[in-house]
Amino acid sequence: MKAYLAGPDVFLPNAAQHAAKKIRICATYGLIGRAPLEDPAEIATGSKADVWRAIFRKDIEMMEECDIIIANLTPFRGASADAGTLVELGWFLGRGRPIFGYSNSAKLFSERCEAQACAIPDQTSLMAIEDFRLPDNLMVPGAVEAGNGLSITLPADTFDRDFYALDIFESCVAKAARHLGLR
Amino acid sequence: MKAYLAGPDVFLPNAAQHAAKKIRICATYGLIGRAPLEDPAEIATGSKADVWRAIFRKDIEMMEECDIIIANLTPFRGASADAGTLVELGWFLGRGRPIFGYSNSAKLFSERCEAQACAIPDQTSLMAIEDFRLPDNLMVPGAVEAGNGLSITLPADTFDRDFYALDIFESCVAKAARHLGLR
Repeated sequence: MKAYLAGPDVFLPNAAQHAAKKIRICATYGLIGRAPLEDPAEIATGSKADVWRAIFRKDIEMMEECDIIIANLTPFRGASADAGTLVELGWFLGRGRPIFGYSNSAKLFSERCEAQACAIPDQTSLMAIEDFRLPDNLMVPGAVEAGNGLSITLPADTFDRDFYALDIFESCVAKAARHLGLR
Repeated sequence: MKAYLAGPDVFLPNAAQHAAKKIRICATYGLIGRAPLEDPAEIATGSKADVWRAIFRKDIEMMEECDIIIANLTPFRGASADAGTLVELGWFLGRGRPIFGYSNSAKLFSERCEAQACAIPDQTSLMAIEDFRLPDNLMVPGAVEAGNGLSITLPADTFDRDFYALDIFESCVAKAARHLGLR
């Protein structure tokens, strides 16, 4: 079974090595991990417009080939998860394929919205803050739950992890493998 | 033809009146606009967990009934569009239904990522910034383009609009109506 490893991990300075670690963890649990941009050399050279469209097409092709998604939903440059990852999460929801997700942050979405409003006061500061004691906008845990019946995997010890930490990812992979009957 | 009007507009203080305006604009162009939470009274009361799940189910049901999405992709509490809107965008992409989107911001995604990194310096500040001169992470314009062949509607005069402004929304609706042969 192939798992699409979505996440802003592609923006890490050593993205390829990090992806390789995630793929090895997946293998331990009987899953074939596929990471976007796992071979940057395959990406077309050319204008910026050519390159981004080639990346988009390649990511969609990889998603088509995958049975499930395991999404890194750690907040990224704002109160919510990475935008690209969220589009991919929605794609799997639309396709009715199993969805698993995790976050290295133990904070509530409402806490992050407040922090964002203080740090960058703008017109959104006056808008309502969703307060359902969830890790992100309700459509995100909703998609994960609808996609497999489970919740987003979070730090059980309530301590935030940095972007390189993979223990919460591994807990999520283990949960997915059990859920799919691989272990 | 029914259009799902996705966006963080639901968090505006007068969300219902704002949604009614968008629905009226859609009608002018021959589209039936459906806005999430257009009747908050329908939402179940009960625990926070009951309420958010009821909203999620209701939104998905409304999406199922809609032929196209017109998404408000204006940045919301961070460098990117609203998280819930992005999940919904991905859902329409997964279903292969036409996608239209607009943003009231004329700024580039890369500019907003830099502003975010300055305002809230954290571990993501050291990660790569996507610089394709796009309005958001490439999966967002990619989804819109894949969903209809057009790009995200942006302020042509390069001036940001506030959250209440609906002229860019109207341009997007007009473009959708032309594209769908309604006008």
